[in-house]
Order: sequence, then C-alpha cells, then structure tokens
Amino acid sequence: MIISMRPHATREEIDHVCERIREFGYKVHSIEGEERVVIGVVGVGDVTACLESIESAPGVESAMRISAPYKFVSREFKKDDSVIKVNGLDIGGEEFVVMAGPCSVESERQIMETAEGVAAAGAQMLRGGAFKPRTSPYDFQGLELEGLKLLRKAKEATGLGIITEVMSDRDVELVAEYADCMQVGARNMQNFALLKSLGACGRPVLLKRGLSSTIKELLMSAEYIVAHGNPSVILCERGIRTFETATRNTCDIAAVPVLNELTHLPVVLDPSHATGKRSLVPALSRAGVAVGADGLIVEVHPCPEKAVSDGAQSLTLEGFRRMMSDLEAYIRLWKQTRAALTATAV
Amino acid sequence: MIISMRPHATREEIDHVCERIREFGYKVHSIEGEERVVIGVVGVGDVTACLESIESAPGVESAMRISAPYKFVSREFKKDDSVIKVNGLDIGGEEFVVMAGPCSVESERQIMETAEGVAAAGAQMLRGGAFKPRTSPYDFQGLELEGLKLLRKAKEATGLGIITEVMSDRDVELVAEYADCMQVGARNMQNFALLKSLGACGRPVLLKRGLSSTIKELLMSAEYIVAHGNPSVILCERGIRTFETATRNTCDIAAVPVLNELTHLPVVLDPSHATGKRSLVPALSRAGVAVGADGLIVEVHPCPEKAVSDGAQSLTLEGFRRMMSDLEAYIRLWKQTRAALTATAV
Amino acid sequence: MIISMRPHATREEIDHVCERIREFGYKVHSIEGEERVVIGVVGVGDVTACLESIESAPGVESAMRISAPYKFVSREFKKDDSVIKVNGLDIGGEEFVVMAGPCSVESERQIMETAEGVAAAGAQMLRGGAFKPRTSPYDFQGLELEGLKLLRKAKEATGLGIITEVMSDRDVELVAEYADCMQVGARNMQNFALLKSLGACGRPVLLKRGLSSTIKELLMSAEYIVAHGNPSVILCERGIRTFETATRNTCDIAAVPVLNELTHLPVVLDPSHATGKRSLVPALSRAGVAVGADGLIVEVHPCPEKAVSDGAQSLTLEGFRRMMSDLEAYIRLWKQTRAALTATAV
Amino acid sequence: MIISMRPHATREEIDHVCERIREFGYKVHSIEGEERVVIGVVGVGDVTACLESIESAPGVESAMRISAPYKFVSREFKKDDSVIKVNGLDIGGEEFVVMAGPCSVESERQIMETAEGVAAAGAQMLRGGAFKPRTSPYDFQGLELEGLKLLRKAKEATGLGIITEVMSDRDVELVAEYADCMQVGARNMQNFALLKSLGACGRPVLLKRGLSSTIKELLMSAEYIVAHGNPSVILCERGIRTFETATRNTCDIAAVPVLNELTHLPVVLDPSHATGKRSLVPALSRAGVAVGADGLIVEVHPCPEKAVSDGAQSLTLEGFRRMMSDLEAYIRLWKQTRAALTATAV
Repeated sequence: MIISMRPHATREEIDHVCERIREFGYKVHSIEGEERVVIGVVGVGDVTACLESIESAPGVESAMRISAPYKFVSREFKKDDSVIKVNGLDIGGEEFVVMAGPCSVESERQIMETAEGVAAAGAQMLRGGAFKPRTSPYDFQGLELEGLKLLRKAKEATGLGIITEVMSDRDVELVAEYADCMQVGARNMQNFALLKSLGACGRPVLLKRGLSSTIKELLMSAEYIVAHGNPSVILCERGIRTFETATRNTCDIAAVPVLNELTHLPVVLDPSHATGKRSLVPALSRAGVAVGADGLIVEVHPCPEKAVSDGAQSLTLEGFRRMMSDLEAYIRLWKQTRAALTATAV
Repeated sequence: MIISMRPHATREEIDHVCERIREFGYKVHSIEGEERVVIGVVGVGDVTACLESIESAPGVESAMRISAPYKFVSREFKKDDSVIKVNGLDIGGEEFVVMAGPCSVESERQIMETAEGVAAAGAQMLRGGAFKPRTSPYDFQGLELEGLKLLRKAKEATGLGIITEVMSDRDVELVAEYADCMQVGARNMQNFALLKSLGACGRPVLLKRGLSSTIKELLMSAEYIVAHGNPSVILCERGIRTFETATRNTCDIAAVPVLNELTHLPVVLDPSHATGKRSLVPALSRAGVAVGADGLIVEVHPCPEKAVSDGAQSLTLEGFRRMMSDLEAYIRLWKQTRAALTATAV
Repeated sequence: MIISMRPHATREEIDHVCERIREFGYKVHSIEGEERVVIGVVGVGDVTACLESIESAPGVESAMRISAPYKFVSREFKKDDSVIKVNGLDIGGEEFVVMAGPCSVESERQIMETAEGVAAAGAQMLRGGAFKPRTSPYDFQGLELEGLKLLRKAKEATGLGIITEVMSDRDVELVAEYADCMQVGARNMQNFALLKSLGACGRPVLLKRGLSSTIKELLMSAEYIVAHGNPSVILCERGIRTFETATRNTCDIAAVPVLNELTHLPVVLDPSHATGKRSLVPALSRAGVAVGADGLIVEVHPCPEKAVSDGAQSLTLEGFRRMMSDLEAYIRLWKQTRAALTATAV
Repeated sequence: MIISMRPHATREEIDHVCERIREFGYKVHSIEGEERVVIGVVGVGDVTACLESIESAPGVESAMRISAPYKFVSREFKKDDSVIKVNGLDIGGEEFVVMAGPCSVESERQIMETAEGVAAAGAQMLRGGAFKPRTSPYDFQGLELEGLKLLRKAKEATGLGIITEVMSDRDVELVAEYADCMQVGARNMQNFALLKSLGACGRPVLLKRGLSSTIKELLMSAEYIVAHGNPSVILCERGIRTFETATRNTCDIAAVPVLNELTHLPVVLDPSHATGKRSLVPALSRAGVAVGADGLIVEVHPCPEKAVSDGAQSLTLEGFRRMMSDLEAYIRLWKQTRAALTATAV
C-alpha cells in the first residue's frame, strides 16, 4: 500500500495514519517529499480493510494498493497455463477450441440441425441458451428444462460438449446435470451469489466479462469461483460498453494478451456479441486467433431471420463453414507459435 | 418500427422484408427515397421478435423500434406521479425523503448510534447492508441474518423505516421479513431471476441503476418487477461508469429529469456512490434536491475511519447533521415548486 | 513519484532503476515488501521525463506521479478564489453570472432580438458563435467577421459583454478585437497551438472541457493558457461523452465541486450542451446553481425551430425568462451561502 | 429522414411539421400508427438544416437521418478501394505497409539509428514527431523545424518515406515541405481549421481517430479534407477512451472491418497508442494484420528508457525486428486473401 498525504497534512494527521496502519499489523515507511509525505506500507494483513480505513482518515489524499487483489487466478500464483478439461477437450492447451451454436435453443429441429452443421464445419462444442437473460420481461425467456434436454439430445447425436448459461444460484444444480461447461453471462459477472454456488458445481465455468467490468474485476469474479472450490474457469472477452454505436459493443481485443500476462486461465473471444453484426464476425474471429485467444464462442443459426434472439449477429451454417475454412490457415499458424504467442517483446 | 434498406437493396429483398413483416401481423408503408427504401411498420404485434427477424433479412441496413419497449412504468401508461408508501412515508409525494445510514451493518452499537444520529438530524429512513456484494471474495460479506435483526432493533428504537439490499432470489423472502423497502444494487439491476422474485415480495423495491446501464434499461428492469406483480418501484441514480477517475462514478444528474419525463415512478439520488468522496456529498445533495429528485440515499457512519466498507464516502454524524441543516432551505424551495419542478420549458 | 517493481524483479533491475532516478536529481527511498520492492522518489526535477524513462526500464511494473502536474491553476498555488473581470463583471466573485444567446449568430435581427430578450430577463453576457466548429463540412460554418460585427452591435445596444468562440490561432487577434471573453470549444480543448496563442491575447478565456477529457486534462489545458501569460481563465463543464444516449452528453455535475477543490479558477455550467434537450435545461440550471457553479452559459434563440444549429437545446426567449424567474430563489440561496458552498464536510 | 411524433401530438403539430419539411423542398409520407404518427421524408435538400429545424418543433419526439452524412469518402460514392500513393508506396493496395519510428525526433543520432534499424527490419516508412501535442505545457514540445530537417536526413539515408504530425493550420505549409504524409493527431481530429487547410496541402494525410470520436465522426473529418480538395486520406484506429485502465486506450479493432464496409479509404492500426504498453504491441499487430488493416504505425526507439515521450509503448529495435519476423507469416496470409478479407459473411 502507498498512502499519499495532502500537501499540508499536519504532523498529527501523519502520526495518526501511521498508528492506524500499525494497528492492522503492517510496517510503515514514511517518505518526506518537498510537497507532501508519502507512506509506504509493507507486511501481511487485511489490505482492503486497512485501505478502507486509511482512505477516511483526516489528511489523507489517496491510498492505493500495489499488490494484485486476486491470488489463485494470478500468474504469480501459478506460472504455467491452466488447461481446463471439458468433455475430453483441453481448453487452454494445444488445441484452438471453437464453440458454436444458436443464441437460444428454440426447437429440436433447430438445435439438431445446428449441432450437426457446426460439428461438420469443425466446431468442438455446442453453445445454446435454455435460460435467457432478456432486457425485456416480454421477450422470450428460454425453453428452460426443455431446452436443456434438447441440448443433451444434440450432444448424443454429435458428441459435441455442451456449454449453456445459468442465471441464478437456484438453477446451478439443474444446469450442471446437462452442461459440460456452465456459462455465466455478462450481466451476471458480479452476481456473487451465483459465483459462490458455481464454486461447488463440479463443472468448468466460462465466465463472460461484464459490459462495463474492468479486467481486474473479471479476475476478481474468477477468484470468487476458484476461492469457493472450483479451479476450472475459462474467461471470455465479449465486448464492453463504450460511446461507439457502430457495433453492439466494443471488442477489447487487447484484453486477451493483457489477461495472458496476468492470469494462467484460458481466454476465449466472443466475436458475435463483441460486434453484434454478422458481417464483422469473420474478421474478428481471425483477429481473435492471431491475438492469441484459446478459442472462440460464435453464434450460428440455421435461419438467422427466424431466430428468436440475436439473429443479426448469427452466422448461417454456410457462413460458419466458410469462416472455419478461412480460419484454418490462421489456426495452423496459432499452433506453430503457441509457445511464443504470449511472450512479451523487449 | 422503421426498417431502412441498404442503398442498393433489390426489389426482391424489399418484397421479402415486407412479407416477413406482414407475417407478424403488421401493416407496411414503403417509402421510396432517392437513395434507398424505408419501410414504416404499424399495428400491434410482437415488436422484439419482428425486429430481431427483420434485422437479419438480406438487404436490411437497420431496423429500429419507435415505441417505448416498456409499458407499465411509462408516463404514457399513467400520467400522474406514483406515490410509494414505505413505512408510512409517501415517496414520490409531497415529502422529500432522506434515507441515511452505513454501507454495512457492522455491530449493534454502530447501527444504533447511526440510527439515532440520522433520525435526530432529520432522516426518515435507515439504510444499511446485511448482505454485501463485494468485488473480492476476501472482503467482508455482511452479517446477513444477524444484520437484519440489528436493523429491526434500530427500527424499534427510532421508528425509521428500513431499506436494505437483497442479492439473490433465494434471500427475497427472508429480507422481506425485515425490510420496509428492498434494495436492488447496481450490480444486480439485470439479475432477472431476482427481479422476477421481487415482483411477488409484497414490499416496495428501490432499484439502483447499473454502472453501465442506460436509462432505458433501468426502466426495463423496473418493468420486470411491475410486470411480475409489484407496482411499488423507486428508481435510484447512483452514478455511472465513465473514463473519469476523479470521482468513483460519474453522477448522471440529468437522469433525474429525464426519468421524470419518461416515467411516473419516483427517483432518488445516491450522492455517496455517485462521487465516492465525502467532501462532495453535500454539493451533490443540494444538486439532487434542486434538480427535482424525490429523495436522497446517503452513507453515514459514526466513525468512517473504522467502517468496514465505503468509509471514504461516508459522512460522519456531525457532517450529516450539518448537511441536513444546509439542505433545509433547498427542500423548502423544493416543496414550494413541487408541481413546477418537472414541467418542461417551451 | 512511486515506482512499483514487478514481483520478481532482480536486484540488478532495482539498482538500475534507482540509479536512473538519481541521474534525474532525485533521492530514492526503497521499500522492500513481502512481494515486491516499491521505490519512493523525492526531490525536485523533471517529473514527466523521469516517469517516462522509468516506466520503460526492465523490471518496472508501474510508475506514478503523486504531485499534481499543474501548478499555477492549483489551489495549492493560490488559496483564494480567482475573480475574473469581464466587461465590468466579476466572474468567480459575489455575483452569479448568466451568459445566454444563440448557438450561432445568424442575422442582425436574430442577434438583436435575442440580446434584448436575454438582457431583459437578467442575463449579464451574450453568447453567440461567429466561427462554428461543425462536424460536417456541408453545415453552416458561421458568419465569421460579419458575425463578430453583429455581436458588437448587440453589445452597443444592450451593454451585455460578448463571449464568442475562437477556433484557430490564426483568428485569435481578430476575435479578441470583438470579444470580451474568448471561448475555446470542447473540440479544441487540447488544440495546444490555440491555447498557447491565447496566453497572449489580452482577454479572459472560457475553456470548455473536452468531450472525453478528464478533469485533470482540463486543468492542464488551463495551465497552458496561464503558463503562456494569461491568468484569466474560466472553466466550463458542458457534459462528457458516455454510453448513455438519452441525453446528448452526460453532465458531470460533480466536476464543479471537484474543480472547486482543486483550482481557484471559476467554473460555469453549460446545461444546454450537457443535455442537448430544451426541456431539461431548467432542471440542470437549478442543479448548477445549487452545486456551487459560478455561472451558467445557456443557449437561447428567438425561434429555435428556425435556428441553423442546436435548435433542439435552445430555450425560447419566453422559456428563458421563465427559467430566470424560477432561478431567482436559488440564486438568492447561492449568495447567502457563497462562502460555505465549497466547504467540505467532516 | 424519419420524424417520430410524440404519442399525443395534435393534428395541428403534425401538420406544422409536414409543412416545415415541405418548405425545405422535401416530400412527406405520414404513417399513422396505433400510438403515434411517424413521418417519412424523401427528396434532396439540406438534411442537417431540416433536421435541426424539425427537432425543435412542438410535438416532435425525435428526428433522425437515414442517409449517411458523408459522401465522397463513402463506399456508395466509390466502390473500389482507394490506393494512396506515398513516396512510391501504394497504401490500400497489394502491399501491407509498416510505418515505424520514435514518438519524437530527439537527436540526429536517435533518428538515424532508428531509421536504419526499422528499414533493415522491413518498415517502409519512418514516423517521428517534430511538433508534439503534449498534455502539459512543461513537457518537451518537439524540435520543430530542426526535427523536420533531421527527418529529411533520415529519408535521404534510408529512402523511407516520412510521416510526421502537423498541429496547426499555420504549420501546414512548412510540414508539407518535409513530409511525405501529414499526420493529424487524435486530439486534432476535429480541428476543423486544420482539416480545411490540409485540403490544399498537396500531400496525403493520415487522420487519426479522436479519443472519443465515433467512426462516423472520423469519416466526417475525412470528408472535410476530401471536400476541401484532397482525396488522399488514410484513416487510423489508435484506441479510444473507455473506463478500462489496464491499457492506455481501448483498441477498437472492429473499427477496421466497419470502416472497410463504409469507406473506400485505407485503414491502418496503431498498436502502440492503442495499448500504451510495449509487451502488448506484437499481439495487437498480429490482430491488425488478421483483421484486414492496410498497415501498421508502430513506435520504436533505440533506447525506450531514454525516450523523452512514450517510452513505455515503444519497441526496441531488436523487439521490432523480432516482431516483423513473426508477422511475416501473417502478412503472407494477408496477401493471399486480400480480396476476400473485406468480404462479408452470409
């Protein structure tokens, strides 16, 4: 921790701050500058509580932590990449993983046709929502249990692992019965009740970054799941909210290498939500491979025009096939340089 | 709905779009411009489904809805201000309501001292968290049931109504037993499972705007609660996330009059989270009264330096007393001009 | 300055950083934490150059300055409020100043009618653009010299001081001949060539905050003008760009008290650009008075429907009159509590 | 244009709006919905003026333009990619162009060493600032004319084309004497006086996107240059300002394919400013190639630690060499699929 005192803080204020810090079990190094006093804090203790306290003390201008607030998910805690097993696949390993499927599971015909189509085109997992978070109470809310059963059917037919969203801690057990990977949507990234219960769900979790969440907050939410017992977390960049309206969200592509530096967890990119526009998905997918993501999660629908949700950003089966074939050369490059991809420049 | 076709859309594409729209039960008015065709859609139907579908059709550039996506919460649905009864108070009525208290309930002594202090200074309700949404799994998560009981004790001693946060649909019943008003935090504004269960909780709900939620999304979340059976919703502006870091959040003060135009629901301002800094709270509170909010929700702690959370933005009891005394004249003006406050200029 | 080394920085890297810092004339205090070394830097020197250098050194995680990067505009440099004389008015003093007028000067009739109307309603200065920064090259670019002459005429008729925008260092001399106060628009807040030339213009300057400029950057731009010889700078909050589209910009109302803490310069609020919508201007104006601004700058047009620019956010003369009459009570309160307005809570 | 009337707009208000529209020379199509009237406007006229006017009319809820506000830079105006000739290079053509060099020209030795190093590594142009836009008036402002002369020297030695920034319309002529390509910095993207004078400068212009500028505004600024006589404009995505602070800016990678759809002008990516961090530059550069940019502009310094500006984001010469060698395979792929890169999915 570093505490910066106001320029004209009194000796009394400075002493009070030092004393408060020592009460938390820390050691204090006070540096007298020309303009103000800065206090360095070292030792082991409850950083957050100490920070909260000191920030409020008279004469303090700012108090900031230096060490990362997360631990288990940090590269410092575990240097090697984590490889997450999902239905036999190694996510974060030697394989570039493509998850594809519709926004919502709508009908048996729709999900079966999509599953077969994306499997044939080279996808390794099937995505599809049974519980749907919708901005409006009047919009389609998902087929729920019926949807989960259809996903299982699609898995039986194609062998594709299933990834599907869970929206409430109440549904964790149910969804875990059907899903190979539990998806936490952007709007629930800081639904802490849900994160805690996922710590004990026995399934890998794909955690989507919130619309306005920082990279640090994404890691803190992952830390929740890990700290509650589940080390198998996959992170997902899916675009953040900015002033730009030409795309549905703004794809923060740099989040991928930033995360590769900060954490050992795998990172996948969602080019569909990141852009909201079908025509941009192939370009963003190429960028995702090249930037060093571990995989993609892509919306595909046999007839986007008839999709109950996200049609505008869904590829057709034909469009997905074409994209996968174009990506091949990029994925080959990705494999050749796997080790070098996250290496930093000097 | 208005559908704008691409400049060189073919006749076939245009006809296809018109046909699809008619399938949804709408009527079509096609307007041929110099550059492109624009299609106006009128009638009653499932707007979202139709929009989703049309957006994906070939030749379509954009499709937008014209009517508001919410209904019950809209001024068009109910012209007069809604007045929400909370523990005998009329929120949204003739009274300017101040809710005050600590971020977290920490101990009996802390909550009793605060309750008595804020009541004496003129607050009408007591705020305090028993369930705390914390970014880090290692931070204090609240006293939970124990905290709720302490709040009840404070109510018994002071008569102040209790407002406290609920974080999961699992806890709704429990919290409703103790709270006069259920608070939904910014991070849960789009926790739709929670919103749905609040529709049946039998208590008024204070719904905080999400960090990166638009005003329209805030209204949609309110609509969830109302559509699920609970018309007693109070909206709360508490700052949004922007690039500016001088304050914890950016207080979108204009959201208050914008909401006053769009909805009949009451709106309160949270100057504590909006700024994150104690010294700014009095100025923002004055602005909140002047701009036409129906009330304030303010963080107060007997000893902010020892607060387990949000100390830096909490007023001391003395600071709160002083602020309430300064606000008096502004609240008097507020009352005099109540009717005129939301009137628009010509 | 505080330098935070990476967790596993080598002794060699740490020594190298300390040496580099000493080359810049600073003293070094190295603090060995559990996880990493933090280096405190004290003394007087070229902070920016040192920071830039150290940030790039191997083993460095981050380097941050503690002292403010501005000097002349800081409250630490000058404790008392600056009062800027403009055409006999004291801006930042005991008077609350209202500047009003059209976005663009369009014709003699329009500007004379507006000037007389706003003067009668109580405005003390006339705003109006002769040089217009327009997003599109095809939009009206202003009457230029002709517009300046009309502003002079309006001044002669009403006695109102003139504030008008200058867009290029080339025009500074010309505009200074006609204007009592030079306005720098949001898009030019970091047009450093312009700022430098305003340092020698001999006129007070109203500096608008850029659409995505931080409060610190606004102060740095003010510092440019002051450091180049002109201490008479008035700051203006006019809304920043965020994800919210319900208003044209997001009014960062808290910027007013934040600036009151950081700088001695006066601060005015522009409720017209901050919202972009006529009906919201009165509420925002009340908030501006209550929050402690030194004045308002408001768009008014005799016939907004026929305005060549910003009609939607312009008040009619009648609307402005009504607003000024409603503001009276708030301005009276403002005067009574002038001294207390910027005082901080404890 | 589409005008949406308020739900309870009167017949008189609707008629007034229609009449006003006709005064601008347009035809009117009025569509009566269940809830409100929507008015479609077709024909040729002054869209902006008409919009501004109508937005202000009583009973109008919103007025939006459908057609793009830019013309010459639009894909609809010119279907084929524009290829801009710069010092013998074809930017936007078959070649992927890399521009590299220091943030600021600092000394003969520095610029010569950099020029030779980047040329050897495969760069085709040399970047380097002689006029520097700096946030602080106390920071290094560039060598100005002396810097331009050094750039010429570096060109003579290496044959590299020179790209350098111009900050004021006053300097356009001078800079044009030395530069092969004029750079407009992010902070000057809406310096309209500068844009106008670049219309007549006789040199290609690289226009950087403003920190908080939309893609549409970037195109409008390009339109300024083209409309004033200079069709040779290269666009540059360099990151936008968002709430995320892990990187200096947020690289809006999707802006590249969005621009490829909307305009015929070439687009280059600046991975250095987009991230602000040397270690992220190689990953972002790969993403830039893969996403379909026409080139990169990268900061390189022989000794970043001694750079007077932007050291933290500058690659060393060795780092740049390594990156160029890694990019080779990606650029080869880029060339193979050039034609297909901007093709949209179905």
